[in-house]
Amino acid sequence: MTDTPTAAMLVIGDEVLSGRTQDCNTQVAAKMLGEAGIDLHEARAIRDDAATITAAVRDLAASHTYVFTSGGIGPTHDDITAEAVAAAFDTPIGIREDARAILVARYGTGADLTDARLRMARIPDGAVLIDNPVSGAPGFRLENVFVMAGVPQVFAAMIEHVRDMVGTGPKMHDISIPCPYPEGVLGGPLTAVAEAHPRVSVGSYPRLKPGGGWGVTIVARSRDTDALAAAETAIHAMIEGLEGSTTEGE
Amino acid sequence: MTDTPTAAMLVIGDEVLSGRTQDCNTQVAAKMLGEAGIDLHEARAIRDDAATITAAVRDLAASHTYVFTSGGIGPTHDDITAEAVAAAFDTPIGIREDARAILVARYGTGADLTDARLRMARIPDGAVLIDNPVSGAPGFRLENVFVMAGVPQVFAAMIEHVRDMVGTGPKMHDISIPCPYPEGVLGGPLTAVAEAHPRVSVGSYPRLKPGGGWGVTIVARSRDTDALAAAETAIHAMIEGLEGSTTEGE
Repeated sequence: MTDTPTAAMLVIGDEVLSGRTQDCNTQVAAKMLGEAGIDLHEARAIRDDAATITAAVRDLAASHTYVFTSGGIGPTHDDITAEAVAAAFDTPIGIREDARAILVARYGTGADLTDARLRMARIPDGAVLIDNPVSGAPGFRLENVFVMAGVPQVFAAMIEHVRDMVGTGPKMHDISIPCPYPEGVLGGPLTAVAEAHPRVSVGSYPRLKPGGGWGVTIVARSRDTDALAAAETAIHAMIEGLEGSTTEGE
Repeated sequence: MTDTPTAAMLVIGDEVLSGRTQDCNTQVAAKMLGEAGIDLHEARAIRDDAATITAAVRDLAASHTYVFTSGGIGPTHDDITAEAVAAAFDTPIGIREDARAILVARYGTGADLTDARLRMARIPDGAVLIDNPVSGAPGFRLENVFVMAGVPQVFAAMIEHVRDMVGTGPKMHDISIPCPYPEGVLGGPLTAVAEAHPRVSVGSYPRLKPGGGWGVTIVARSRDTDALAAAETAIHAMIEGLEGSTTEGE
């Protein structure tokens, strides 16, 4: 499976790290990538700091097939992502005519085309624009890095465009099986199932139910549908084998 | 501000990166840290892979005052965080009597004290336990790394305990000011405000309103309350100065 493309998500913004904003863009990217057969290996949230952004982009771009960023491409002084990404690849950046034309179509060439808005036409040399059907100002792809907006509706619209710009890998399939027994009971047998099915990733996810008590979902994932079906059968047999066990506890 | 403690959050779990689960623990940690005056500088989500966890813990522990982890300390085979954190500090790990006693108090010494549950008593040498009032099995602190559960209710309960285990820094104060003008209009004047108030971090956060159109919130943050008050006055004056500007557009 060494030819499976991998990805990293880079969430840029003080507002996530201060707790003011809940990042939702990672989950949106994760779902798109899952459908494309691309493994999201890491998600990182960092501050609005140019050197930090540049270093993180360099680090992640060197170790993953694709990097997706969200945040910091608007018109205000704290929007520094485009410059920082350009710096990561030692690429010049300036107002580009194709990006400017998008803003002109929206704001005209009068007073509404403010210097602040023109900041959103700053695109690194050689970058490919990413459509923004929500509010116009584009994202861009530079090398293997896709730079997108932080506003969730805009990010979600952009990632639909990006879906057609990335390659695809063998799709990861998954099944979810609810289990009436707590992890402390199923842990031993589930280890045996996981070991007997090395081509399948077997996870166990406990949750506290609103009314009290624990629920567990067993999730099995594989790119090999035959191996996944065999694991599914084994998990159901394991649960049947636990009949009579306590359903109490963690 | 070089003496301000910094922190990193490390979210461990395939379920976050697959998009199956939305991480909420980072925001809970961020809010606690904000109240304690500790700057959360980075949040990272990584896979359930021992070498990846160990490398990330080493990296983050070396560059931050504190590291907080969530996930991977339950009773099943995919819970490998404790071993990976111990490995990051070259520390031996085994079933520790104090942690075992907590599980015995909950499950007795009979069949309910399964091998799977005993995995949750595996604590690195020298680590300090972190209370788990929800389900018993403790987290732990090893060096500057706090290892906690991924289940949100348990994580939230553990972080309340951790609050008393960390130092505090000078508190970061913040103000939020709603602005009727879009970022493309306020961007220029806001840059001037930010430059005139170097001790204050000024951010601008646009959002799409449910009924359509954009809303903007200006957030100013500082540890210096006098500087923050001066910036607040300047931001209000800036907004008054924009009277008559269009409220349309991004």
